[in-house]
Amino acid sequence: MSIEQYLNKIPSIKRSTHGTINIDPLQRGGLLTDEAKKALIEWGDGYSICDFCPGALDMIKTPPIHEFIHSALPEFLGTDKARVTNGARESKFAIMHSMAKKGDWIVLDKNAHYTSYVAAERVAMNIKVVPRLESPDYSIDPQGYGTAIEEVISESGTTPALALITYPDGNYGNLPDVQKIAAICHEYNVPLILNGAYSVGRMPVKADKLGADFIVGSGHKSMASSGPIGVLGVSDEYTDRLFIKSSNNKAKEIEFLGCSARGATIMTMIASFPKVVERTKHWDEEVEKARWFSSQMESLGMIQMGDKPHNHDLMFFETPVLYEKSKTEKKGRYFLYKALKARKIHGIKPGLTKFFKLSTFGLPMEELQVVVDAFTEIINA
Amino acid sequence: MSIEQYLNKIPSIKRSTHGTINIDPLQRGGLLTDEAKKALIEWGDGYSICDFCPGALDMIKTPPIHEFIHSALPEFLGTDKARVTNGARESKFAIMHSMAKKGDWIVLDKNAHYTSYVAAERVAMNIKVVPRLESPDYSIDPQGYGTAIEEVISESGTTPALALITYPDGNYGNLPDVQKIAAICHEYNVPLILNGAYSVGRMPVKADKLGADFIVGSGHKSMASSGPIGVLGVSDEYTDRLFIKSSNNKAKEIEFLGCSARGATIMTMIASFPKVVERTKHWDEEVEKARWFSSQMESLGMIQMGDKPHNHDLMFFETPVLYEKSKTEKKGRYFLYKALKARKIHGIKPGLTKFFKLSTFGLPMEELQVVVDAFTEIINA
Repeated sequence: MSIEQYLNKIPSIKRSTHGTINIDPLQRGGLLTDEAKKALIEWGDGYSICDFCPGALDMIKTPPIHEFIHSALPEFLGTDKARVTNGARESKFAIMHSMAKKGDWIVLDKNAHYTSYVAAERVAMNIKVVPRLESPDYSIDPQGYGTAIEEVISESGTTPALALITYPDGNYGNLPDVQKIAAICHEYNVPLILNGAYSVGRMPVKADKLGADFIVGSGHKSMASSGPIGVLGVSDEYTDRLFIKSSNNKAKEIEFLGCSARGATIMTMIASFPKVVERTKHWDEEVEKARWFSSQMESLGMIQMGDKPHNHDLMFFETPVLYEKSKTEKKGRYFLYKALKARKIHGIKPGLTKFFKLSTFGLPMEELQVVVDAFTEIINA
Repeated sequence: MSIEQYLNKIPSIKRSTHGTINIDPLQRGGLLTDEAKKALIEWGDGYSICDFCPGALDMIKTPPIHEFIHSALPEFLGTDKARVTNGARESKFAIMHSMAKKGDWIVLDKNAHYTSYVAAERVAMNIKVVPRLESPDYSIDPQGYGTAIEEVISESGTTPALALITYPDGNYGNLPDVQKIAAICHEYNVPLILNGAYSVGRMPVKADKLGADFIVGSGHKSMASSGPIGVLGVSDEYTDRLFIKSSNNKAKEIEFLGCSARGATIMTMIASFPKVVERTKHWDEEVEKARWFSSQMESLGMIQMGDKPHNHDLMFFETPVLYEKSKTEKKGRYFLYKALKARKIHGIKPGLTKFFKLSTFGLPMEELQVVVDAFTEIINA
């Protein structure tokens, strides 16, 4: 397709999923607040936030980015210092790249997000995986970190440069015992990264309370922000390595390439921040809704995997009852997607019937009831 | 300041420069089109573009991102392949990180943007600078690349891994002779990166015609996009190294951490693309306006530095007439900023009177006349 052909196509680009009940775990925590929508328009133009830049993104006082990065965000994350990045994966890469070199080892959990692997691969690190329990738990035994660290030491003769734990993971919504994992890592002097892409902005999470040395979060995944944008929190112990400044420009930090979220993205994060802080205070209600939803799904013959009772809005279900049904449906394995679409429910990947994940985060009970009713109808049809 | 104090401050965040004539070079090319503003709202929610993701950003067909990245963008950039990144600096880092290792050399021009240095520093490369001519030209002699490469070879015993040329630079708006520079670099088998942050999306520029192996551009600087977002074009010769896929996830490219501009940013770039393509066809009018503006400023006693006649909207002026005036003004060196602000003109950094840069890009003649009239009044006051 040539440019000219492509150009003719562009004016018609609309999002077809507007108006649906969205249960996609990737998207529930990134829905914009009204304040963020206004910020998008107010600050949409390229480099708008740089009207009064004194030299670097984190130093901008108009709009109040300096206070956000240097005061509000560290308190929110429970860390000494914080930065805004282009996303949780970019936060992880910045940490790994500053803390490790080619050939160093990182220990991470079997439930780690693919971006944790990719970030480590980009640094050319070796990866040691802490196994998870079998189905249906898929949980991480903290002792596995001790075993993995010992294995790295015995195989390579060096201590791992870093460890990482996913809290919660993006498949099962499992919340591992980070305090125990941190204690074990620290016995070996291995700094721990907490991947909070699905926790920071959804639930209360403080790196210092959990014992993590680094924490990363995602604005577009869990902080009601327009992406790509992420956050990073760090203990003072490691700022020397992470915040090294350019020898060619004293205001600019090398690992963030000078300035990271240099656009409307950071203004949506700031605009949503009051509501994000507030919603983390009502996390117990989210857990309650998730547990109710899980029980309803199980009463229909589907089985929730992972932590039980569940402690997070992200849930994974095995659904043999739907798989059996798909065998006789005209649309085959696409029948579930089509049936949900007909009921204006979006977020389960087309083609899945044996298992799927979903999220109940921020959905009112009435809408969750609509989803439960939909599954009831589909299963009983 | 505590979170609570900060939260109370947020609702009042407005952009104070709306409604001004903006002559900030950083911002002129990133002003959103009406289509991009609509796209921001349509696709603002976090991960909205992932509604129908088949595995990676560049594979998404709804919305039509796949065609943009794999067809329209390479044709626009004049390269075999293209990718979207989080910005021009992130494009440069991805190229350098995949093409070079710690201790390798990069040759770059004295007019290079600070992010070219920072990207090279992040890879721990050694930097050899090609000098520029003295004032008032500040231009880069292509032969300087040959000299610099020879120096690296004689000092280190190795050929530089990369060369970079800034086209145009962000201070003087100078357009160096890239074809000659490319020919010299290729004599030594040194691949050349073209930093087109101020050209791609403003003026016609094709990497293949100029002989560059890589080209980077900035969405928020010159492609009417909401940032952070950039583009990267590459010759097939180097895709093997730049597009390496994760061994843990076959759809994801390591240098882009899987997916880069995973949000509304890419939809604003696509929405603005027809007008961006169109405006590059009227570049001659932009050059004509810039030259007219330069002549008006010079008739007021200010001196335009760099290429003359000028070939770009970004211009640097030495302004002794304003500096002399500042000595007797009540506001001192802030008088110019205040006087322009009173006339609703924004974009010259507060405190500057000896010299400054500005851009005429996309401004209608009537508004440029307002700016010229303002300087006339200020100088004659």
